[in-house]
Amino acid sequence: MKAAVIGATGYTGQVLLRLLENHPKIKTIIPVSSSKTGTPLSAADPAIGKALKKTADVDSKYVSVAQAVEMKPDVVFAALPHLKSAEVCAPFFDRAVVIDLSADFRIKDRAVFREAYGQEPPRPDLLDRAVFGLVEIYKKEIKKASLIANPGCYPTCTTLPLYPVLKKYKHTGAVVVNALSGISGAGKNLKENLMYCQRDESCGAYNPGKLHRHTQEIEQELNKARPGTDIFFTPHLVPLKRGMAVTSFVSFKKEITDEMIETALNRFYKNSPFVNIVGSGRIPETADVLGSNRCDIGWRIFGKQVIFMSVIDNLMKGASGQAVQNMNVRFGFKETSGLNVFGDL
Amino acid sequence: MKAAVIGATGYTGQVLLRLLENHPKIKTIIPVSSSKTGTPLSAADPAIGKALKKTADVDSKYVSVAQAVEMKPDVVFAALPHLKSAEVCAPFFDRAVVIDLSADFRIKDRAVFREAYGQEPPRPDLLDRAVFGLVEIYKKEIKKASLIANPGCYPTCTTLPLYPVLKKYKHTGAVVVNALSGISGAGKNLKENLMYCQRDESCGAYNPGKLHRHTQEIEQELNKARPGTDIFFTPHLVPLKRGMAVTSFVSFKKEITDEMIETALNRFYKNSPFVNIVGSGRIPETADVLGSNRCDIGWRIFGKQVIFMSVIDNLMKGASGQAVQNMNVRFGFKETSGLNVFGDL
Amino acid sequence: MKAAVIGATGYTGQVLLRLLENHPKIKTIIPVSSSKTGTPLSAADPAIGKALKKTADVDSKYVSVAQAVEMKPDVVFAALPHLKSAEVCAPFFDRAVVIDLSADFRIKDRAVFREAYGQEPPRPDLLDRAVFGLVEIYKKEIKKASLIANPGCYPTCTTLPLYPVLKKYKHTGAVVVNALSGISGAGKNLKENLMYCQRDESCGAYNPGKLHRHTQEIEQELNKARPGTDIFFTPHLVPLKRGMAVTSFVSFKKEITDEMIETALNRFYKNSPFVNIVGSGRIPETADVLGSNRCDIGWRIFGKQVIFMSVIDNLMKGASGQAVQNMNVRFGFKETSGLNVFGDL
Amino acid sequence: MKAAVIGATGYTGQVLLRLLENHPKIKTIIPVSSSKTGTPLSAADPAIGKALKKTADVDSKYVSVAQAVEMKPDVVFAALPHLKSAEVCAPFFDRAVVIDLSADFRIKDRAVFREAYGQEPPRPDLLDRAVFGLVEIYKKEIKKASLIANPGCYPTCTTLPLYPVLKKYKHTGAVVVNALSGISGAGKNLKENLMYCQRDESCGAYNPGKLHRHTQEIEQELNKARPGTDIFFTPHLVPLKRGMAVTSFVSFKKEITDEMIETALNRFYKNSPFVNIVGSGRIPETADVLGSNRCDIGWRIFGKQVIFMSVIDNLMKGASGQAVQNMNVRFGFKETSGLNVFGDL
Repeated sequence: MKAAVIGATGYTGQVLLRLLENHPKIKTIIPVSSSKTGTPLSAADPAIGKALKKTADVDSKYVSVAQAVEMKPDVVFAALPHLKSAEVCAPFFDRAVVIDLSADFRIKDRAVFREAYGQEPPRPDLLDRAVFGLVEIYKKEIKKASLIANPGCYPTCTTLPLYPVLKKYKHTGAVVVNALSGISGAGKNLKENLMYCQRDESCGAYNPGKLHRHTQEIEQELNKARPGTDIFFTPHLVPLKRGMAVTSFVSFKKEITDEMIETALNRFYKNSPFVNIVGSGRIPETADVLGSNRCDIGWRIFGKQVIFMSVIDNLMKGASGQAVQNMNVRFGFKETSGLNVFGDL
Repeated sequence: MKAAVIGATGYTGQVLLRLLENHPKIKTIIPVSSSKTGTPLSAADPAIGKALKKTADVDSKYVSVAQAVEMKPDVVFAALPHLKSAEVCAPFFDRAVVIDLSADFRIKDRAVFREAYGQEPPRPDLLDRAVFGLVEIYKKEIKKASLIANPGCYPTCTTLPLYPVLKKYKHTGAVVVNALSGISGAGKNLKENLMYCQRDESCGAYNPGKLHRHTQEIEQELNKARPGTDIFFTPHLVPLKRGMAVTSFVSFKKEITDEMIETALNRFYKNSPFVNIVGSGRIPETADVLGSNRCDIGWRIFGKQVIFMSVIDNLMKGASGQAVQNMNVRFGFKETSGLNVFGDL
Repeated sequence: MKAAVIGATGYTGQVLLRLLENHPKIKTIIPVSSSKTGTPLSAADPAIGKALKKTADVDSKYVSVAQAVEMKPDVVFAALPHLKSAEVCAPFFDRAVVIDLSADFRIKDRAVFREAYGQEPPRPDLLDRAVFGLVEIYKKEIKKASLIANPGCYPTCTTLPLYPVLKKYKHTGAVVVNALSGISGAGKNLKENLMYCQRDESCGAYNPGKLHRHTQEIEQELNKARPGTDIFFTPHLVPLKRGMAVTSFVSFKKEITDEMIETALNRFYKNSPFVNIVGSGRIPETADVLGSNRCDIGWRIFGKQVIFMSVIDNLMKGASGQAVQNMNVRFGFKETSGLNVFGDL
Repeated sequence: MKAAVIGATGYTGQVLLRLLENHPKIKTIIPVSSSKTGTPLSAADPAIGKALKKTADVDSKYVSVAQAVEMKPDVVFAALPHLKSAEVCAPFFDRAVVIDLSADFRIKDRAVFREAYGQEPPRPDLLDRAVFGLVEIYKKEIKKASLIANPGCYPTCTTLPLYPVLKKYKHTGAVVVNALSGISGAGKNLKENLMYCQRDESCGAYNPGKLHRHTQEIEQELNKARPGTDIFFTPHLVPLKRGMAVTSFVSFKKEITDEMIETALNRFYKNSPFVNIVGSGRIPETADVLGSNRCDIGWRIFGKQVIFMSVIDNLMKGASGQAVQNMNVRFGFKETSGLNVFGDL
């Protein structure tokens, strides 16, 4: 199998290179970067150094999109900014399975996309073809997909705990979601507020309530579980490199028990190796899942009200790990192939 | 003026020593520590070194409570653990103004105290005498108080943005509060989960919903603004030393405008130098108030729903700075005396 | 192959469990902990959760040393404190290959050991049998060893750049080594100076000059390259979890060129997949090798004086990764088996 | 007294604003920024918010250099990049005391300046007039200076421990200096290697040996203590915002005792309130001096070899605090006026 990674110098692209290098089914990796075409990986990504054995045939240099097209990859991972990805991926459609990590194909309703991204979806003609790549919900569709819209980090970490429970039990009022994210979630952008001295020893909310574009993505998914679900989503930047913690408040219409939630989640996720239900025991922390593709889910119940707490590594289950999981399912590999279920120390 | 600091080796005690050293009205500082009696400050607190000029008369050593009693301080700051403070402070009652940073005198209802702390309040006879030391609300009472219960960090940061608005406008459903705290909020305790390698590069919730003991304190105060207010409060530990950010969701009964909130807050805090209303502009970050006694308050409105965001330095406005502010008001000093309104870089 | 990890709850033990789980030649892992015998791994090591498939036969609980002996492991990793390890390992000698991560068998000269550790080596009878487990130098001996003394983190990171060059070119005066270490190097000890609030936003030297016990270990090895080498070694704690950077100053007797050093290192390490010579190019940083078993080596020359800069992940090439590398060599597996040559993002 | 701060939006400029606001002798602060002229401070420096009372007359907005000239400040702090500062300061020469935090006037020898900065000193005509602003050595000259070259952070932290001892005792061979610096030392520059995700959890050397431009500055000063002193200086970036630790190795010609060093330092610094000699006791850490203008000095002796360890806050004694100390001395204020001798928690 040949895999191309477009945007191979960004954080999610870099993680993809590492995951693919260790993946037993991948024989060749094609690292694509328009800004670094011709540069050796060892110069732009010193941690990977000369260690990427699977790109030997291309002399371990980044190639252009055009070169990548000629190399005929079986699968293409697009790790590009929103609103740019669809177009760059175009030459690969119908020639390879495309797993797009941007938001370009995630939102199915064009009006909602406009609201979130301020313009038309770049390729509305392909929205029907794109499958939302949350394996735990859409495995059947992913198995046949030619275009997979890899979900956002916040939507992944919010949807997994809530979807099965909202589906089963009616709630009332708004679902209030607060999220904490490591700084890599903001991408590799030279912005003053992403400098070390600005983010070290500081934290705070940004784009609260309805202002973050992942809110629409979360609502799209949770409305499939329970139509009319209203989400208030407030993300926060916290000083760590990787990691995401989501705390969700739901007020149900009736009293809830641990058993009710546990049963709902266990049934829904009985074949999901990356969902780890810790229930009313340990409260998950982001370090529990660092480097793993796991999502840990805990909760506490107060009569009808429930606080759900879920954590992921934003670059793994929140991005690159999930993309590899999608590839595994799409190509019939073992779902955990090349991915760690356990977290690093 | 002579000031004693009991528990002078803990984080809040250490900050108090520094604030008092720079305070223009304090002539003598009495550092009290039962575990370090007789030890020079330079040994136990190397950053303060030999720099504490105001303790010269006691050879810059920690003294015992008994020694401190004999030195007849005018004001006593008790920076001790909950359920221990009241008893240690006893010899000073009626001899000095006592500003207690523990929770021993904060909760007025004995049943609520039992629920939160698992036992009777240690000195129920003094609960009537104790004034809740949130200067922005209780200035009049503090001016005459002999015993001041310095508020908790989370209650301070949650109450300040919400109190004036809840008082003025009716809300519906639960108020959902999420808070982020630096690690110093957990005190100087040798616990495995407070080790560097456990907290670095990790974050997550703890004691969610109704489980943290500050929930009752927040409810006590906000119920004065609006009886029946139901709080779901979820704190999170994030990897920074100092700083606290609170994000609160309130669903009001009618549509809300920026002007309504701005007016409510501006009026209520027109004489409060440490409340900084940033409104619908900048979203406050904890670094904005590091080292200052300020609370910055911002918000975003979505029809009837409002997200409030407030930040403090948990060791300043959340503890020691607020204690000094209480002293200033109680003794008729300028409210900002010895306290910074601006934050460190 | 069956592998036992004694001290499986410490940092190096935890990393060993993860490396062995992903190692293609290991079929069974025996996690040993005297303090946690009978406890499920998911309780004591939440990041590994229920994810350790290779311990299924022992119900994923920590076992005692006695239980481990009965399970007849082929290889035993001892991740225990100095001066305790030798004794705990005793029952395995002659029954399994023992790879000891403590210092108990590293220092060959008993007088030097006494000087460094303040007492006799615990098992002087075994010192002759023990092979110093620096694969890059002692591969031949390791292939036949029954007892491997896994080197310390500082000695590994200091010896690798200097050994081949000191061997080839004469130097004069002291070799001045400064090292920076992440906090995990201090082990999982409940000490006040290892608390988050003590180590965050602080750094400094400790045990400078000749006071750190790794100094003797470094001198032992470098004196094999060049007798009479005198080391002044000053380690520093810096606020990161994992990572080690060593900066060494050597004054040679004659003018040195890049080519001279490059040739010396390239020849010596031509079969060493984990040594990455970056030379006069990029100056290595610890993040370059995070999660990898690599040692990156750079330098700058000023006439006769050379500054060498080397980095490792202290828990990988500095401890657990090196231990697995030793196992690989000892059992004839591929040297890189189960180990990453590239660093994590 | 009126004080202007040119470059008031950089880190050192921001710290200067805060120090001057709390300084008892300063009545008016003139914040100068060419890039932010006309912008309110509350927009560009949210932590200072509306809290700067001493700029009220200029509506708390940054002003241009031209405007500042018309306001006739008594003292001008130039917190500008090297090679730009001299020119921007020109209009103030002979009208105000200029304290320049750049390197433009620090190096007296034009050839050495060229070597370090790659071009002629921008105002060679003023080099004679400029006094090197290390108060502990040049107090007498500073009292009469009209142009003060505020020393670099590394030269300050390196010179203070070594100067008096090198002056008194002969050494042999190179002095090997290793330094650790927090990231604010690199200034507020939008460079990829200063992003949070690049610096978090990483550390390493840069510009080793003779490559950092502070090496010449250190040699200039230490050669006054002992001609012929040869410095090898290797700085390292470590993940903290503020703080600097320097570890220096000196090989003396004869055996050294603690008393010899202690006497040399105590005599030299007997009137220096910011030098704190901790000797062979505690090894200083950067957190000991955070927020203070202190330099803590410790050492350990090994026969003729001595390891000196010194720490400062790079933005205080390493930059802005030292600049205020220079102002204090120049204008006859108390040397510690407006500066903390103790460190923050």
